[in-house]
Amino acid sequence: MSTVYLLFTLEGMPDDLQMKPGQLLARGVCRHLVSHDFVTVEELTPAPGLRVDIMALGPRGEVWIVECKSCRTDFTSDGKWHNYLEWCDRYFWAVDEAFPTDLLPDGTGLIIADQYDAEIIRMAPETKLAGARRKVMVQKFARHAALRWHAVRDPGFSVSWGL
Amino acid sequence: MSTVYLLFTLEGMPDDLQMKPGQLLARGVCRHLVSHDFVTVEELTPAPGLRVDIMALGPRGEVWIVECKSCRTDFTSDGKWHNYLEWCDRYFWAVDEAFPTDLLPDGTGLIIADQYDAEIIRMAPETKLAGARRKVMVQKFARHAALRWHAVRDPGFSVSWGL
Repeated sequence: MSTVYLLFTLEGMPDDLQMKPGQLLARGVCRHLVSHDFVTVEELTPAPGLRVDIMALGPRGEVWIVECKSCRTDFTSDGKWHNYLEWCDRYFWAVDEAFPTDLLPDGTGLIIADQYDAEIIRMAPETKLAGARRKVMVQKFARHAALRWHAVRDPGFSVSWGL
Repeated sequence: MSTVYLLFTLEGMPDDLQMKPGQLLARGVCRHLVSHDFVTVEELTPAPGLRVDIMALGPRGEVWIVECKSCRTDFTSDGKWHNYLEWCDRYFWAVDEAFPTDLLPDGTGLIIADQYDAEIIRMAPETKLAGARRKVMVQKFARHAALRWHAVRDPGFSVSWGL
């Protein structure tokens, strides 16, 4: 297929200059996870009131959640992270090199990231999802990604993200 | 979030002028299926050597396949469509108003489409996928959509589509 130059407007599509530190970490993490054969979406809602930074889906349906923390305050002000554990097989933190990783709780994974790439420093322990919940999460992931990709390949299409 | 203007290159991202008749039908079908709460991807590969025009995923994991035919020749030259039946719960043809629909085989659904919208004229009969195959298809769908959406939200990311 030929290369086509496309100019369009998309709500909420940030570029480097407008991205927050946590979003830049997420970018590096998502790039890296592809090397593990995991595909990703950002800001998925597993349940009302919860929104995860990254949900990653592995080649055998593995569900990982990664929360990105740009600084100590970003971490200490997060009162919701415990609620994410029940929605994934493995839970990770992603932080930059300067982050005081001693703060991070046991029983979680650790990814060191920058805006370009990342590395899994400590694999998260696995707590396998029940089959029914995994099905729900893969379905949510698929719908999240497909609606956004649809809006890109057909800019005349508009949709609410309320899934 | 604010509106951001984004200029980038994407392989194979056609605009109206470059889209083929079948692709324009697919656009209308994909728009319409959202009103049935189905999300879609195009040109998914269920198995080597097969590529479906549209795979649609319903709210309860239903898998529909839609093949778009722009004219009689487009239909009669398709020797592969029988192979798609085993990969979906329901199989549809999408054609324009001028298409001689008497040609289309029994036991399939019919969608009349144009480039802007579509309508399901005849619901396809249901032949439910086995659980294991449905799981494979939802997983393929999720990976297809996520990789493409990833390349859009991070233009610096490049990936092979070979899934």
